Amino acid sequence: MESKDHDRLIILPADEFSRRLDKVRSLMSADGIEAALICDNADIYYMTGRVFCGFIFITADGFVRIAVRRPSRLKGDNVVDIHKIEDLPPMLPAVSGKFGLELSRVPYLTAMRYVKAFGEDKRYVDITPVINRARAVKTDMELEAIRLSGVRQTRIYNRIPHLYEEGMRDIDLQIEIERASRLEGCLGQFRVSGQDMELFMGNVLVGENADTPSPYDFAMGGAGMDPSLPVGANGTLIRPGLSVMVDVNGNYTGYMTDMTRCFYVDALPERALAAHQLSIDICDRLADMGRPGVEARALYEEAESMARNAGFEGEFMGHNYHAGFVGHGVGIEINELPVIAPRSKSVLETGNVIALEPKFVIPGVGAVGIEDTYIVCDGAPMQRVTDAPRNVTLLE
Amino acid sequence: MESKDHDRLIILPADEFSRRLDKVRSLMSADGIEAALICDNADIYYMTGRVFCGFIFITADGFVRIAVRRPSRLKGDNVVDIHKIEDLPPMLPAVSGKFGLELSRVPYLTAMRYVKAFGEDKRYVDITPVINRARAVKTDMELEAIRLSGVRQTRIYNRIPHLYEEGMRDIDLQIEIERASRLEGCLGQFRVSGQDMELFMGNVLVGENADTPSPYDFAMGGAGMDPSLPVGANGTLIRPGLSVMVDVNGNYTGYMTDMTRCFYVDALPERALAAHQLSIDICDRLADMGRPGVEARALYEEAESMARNAGFEGEFMGHNYHAGFVGHGVGIEINELPVIAPRSKSVLETGNVIALEPKFVIPGVGAVGIEDTYIVCDGAPMQRVTDAPRNVTLLE
Repeated sequence: MESKDHDRLIILPADEFSRRLDKVRSLMSADGIEAALICDNADIYYMTGRVFCGFIFITADGFVRIAVRRPSRLKGDNVVDIHKIEDLPPMLPAVSGKFGLELSRVPYLTAMRYVKAFGEDKRYVDITPVINRARAVKTDMELEAIRLSGVRQTRIYNRIPHLYEEGMRDIDLQIEIERASRLEGCLGQFRVSGQDMELFMGNVLVGENADTPSPYDFAMGGAGMDPSLPVGANGTLIRPGLSVMVDVNGNYTGYMTDMTRCFYVDALPERALAAHQLSIDICDRLADMGRPGVEARALYEEAESMARNAGFEGEFMGHNYHAGFVGHGVGIEINELPVIAPRSKSVLETGNVIALEPKFVIPGVGAVGIEDTYIVCDGAPMQRVTDAPRNVTLLE
Repeated sequence: MESKDHDRLIILPADEFSRRLDKVRSLMSADGIEAALICDNADIYYMTGRVFCGFIFITADGFVRIAVRRPSRLKGDNVVDIHKIEDLPPMLPAVSGKFGLELSRVPYLTAMRYVKAFGEDKRYVDITPVINRARAVKTDMELEAIRLSGVRQTRIYNRIPHLYEEGMRDIDLQIEIERASRLEGCLGQFRVSGQDMELFMGNVLVGENADTPSPYDFAMGGAGMDPSLPVGANGTLIRPGLSVMVDVNGNYTGYMTDMTRCFYVDALPERALAAHQLSIDICDRLADMGRPGVEARALYEEAESMARNAGFEGEFMGHNYHAGFVGHGVGIEINELPVIAPRSKSVLETGNVIALEPKFVIPGVGAVGIEDTYIVCDGAPMQRVTDAPRNVTLLE
């Protein structure tokens, strides 16, 4: 029985599979897209509950075929094994309308090979925005996975003061948090969308290293330990007067939560503590504002305005450089929709999962502020799923 | 002085930068390519010694301009800050011949944006094969980085027996190896080429889990801990009679080494030990054969023939499924040229760095065999840079 289940391609319960498929189809219909070919690992995981190497072909009006290159011999209705993309089109109905490919994700030459296999006369469009919008509104089952990741990530964050030992550098503390997370069941891998993006298990930033800009579009930077991966810890000794910002991976279920907390070893200057409290206040305010129908950019504007009114404009989202957002969707990937940014076109919907991270970099001290993952709810403030104490915490 | 160096975009020594640039240019010339635009993180790291978000534009006849989006304010000749790709073409000479883009790496829509920015009338070609060929032949400086990674990875492998404790599962041992590696300076991130490929820090495979096929094109599979990342350890208890194959990340310098060793807790059956010895023999034979001018596929054929002649054809590179290669180039990414596979078109060159991994899966026991990283030398056998004891080793 167990081995049968293991061979079943679609791990999702049947009704959950239908729910996700229907959501994608209804967004396809709204955009006038007739068919879609899905092959990205994150999208395939979303549709089936497992990662495989192959293709999911669907039409808006009900056809579905799943073609697997690796591993072979998975079972299920509409599941076939193929060797290469060229084997697939003869098994499918002809497409005369718009044909969606993941043009924002698939390399150019790979996309051109698909186009050649399916016919150059088709009207190809990008299906990525449709799937991103579907993925942005989580189902109850996805929310459960996110809540579970939140509980387990919280457990690790509560243990951070006990993982610290005197004389540690940022990287030493990070390694102990990584190990504790892995022993708690963290899967390690942090899926990030975007060809330029790379991230290991998250970052510990101590002192002014937080203000070193990085090539990656994250809220904070850091020089990293090597120019081949220039982000995060750079070997700074944890010492009095410096903030210790921990933003380490909560991937316990295939769905991630994102949480940041700040620590210190002796005392932090008043201005740093005030900025940290402001971050908490901004999160509370945005959580209250963040209802279905609210524009994502309104949340950004509120956060920026609170920072400005409190006299922290120059330190908001960085000091030497400033990140252009204050929050982001999270789920299978760490950077999903909606983005909480000034030019975001997203409108919040029930079931969005959003990490809010209003952070400040205080010169001479480092990064302060928190990050929490929230669920957008109907008729109530956003619900927080990451629950470690929010104040700056003494490492003892 | 130090801060000046940190701001300098090109971290490579000037002569090393010229050497790599000249190599790419000479391959461009040979392929009749006039200009190239490079933006992939791994390629950018190769060209400059650091990762940044932006573009390197070069022509075969000597022009170079480096345009940076993030982080801004890096210094150097020919370095400019830009906001978006559209800012770049006005700063460049016109291109009338073949114009290389990384079409095997860049997403379709990103490539189309570049095409629009530079003009749809240009003759665009894929520059990825040119850069891959340049990267496949390491410079002395790159070889030094690889040797250093090998020394440090070897140090960790020598400690594995001491990291083991009775009652550990595969994942528990893996986590302790990960931590030891990180404390030794391992950067964590394992760069892998290919849109479908994902890998955390490597894998520990115990018993028959080694024979579970995965979606990824690695030599061995494993079910993984979760269907969202179906590769590697699956929670199998380490116990007598099962092989423990360790294939964990050696990324200590931005250049990786790849090494696999096998362990056990009590005794392994004769047939498993024979297959393991055969793996060592194949490595020795291929290391001796692997000279400049030899076809990569000849190495594969020799390995397969040795496996067949010894009666291990059914277990060679897997039992339930078989990987289609016995080795691969390694460097900035874990899967570079040349590939040691039946249909490889590569011919070995002095300075290639190749991981050989003739492995076997023995039913009821698990995976056995070794993997080592070698440098192709002129007039001598390949030089091994990973140096842990090769026999199966008792975990005590």
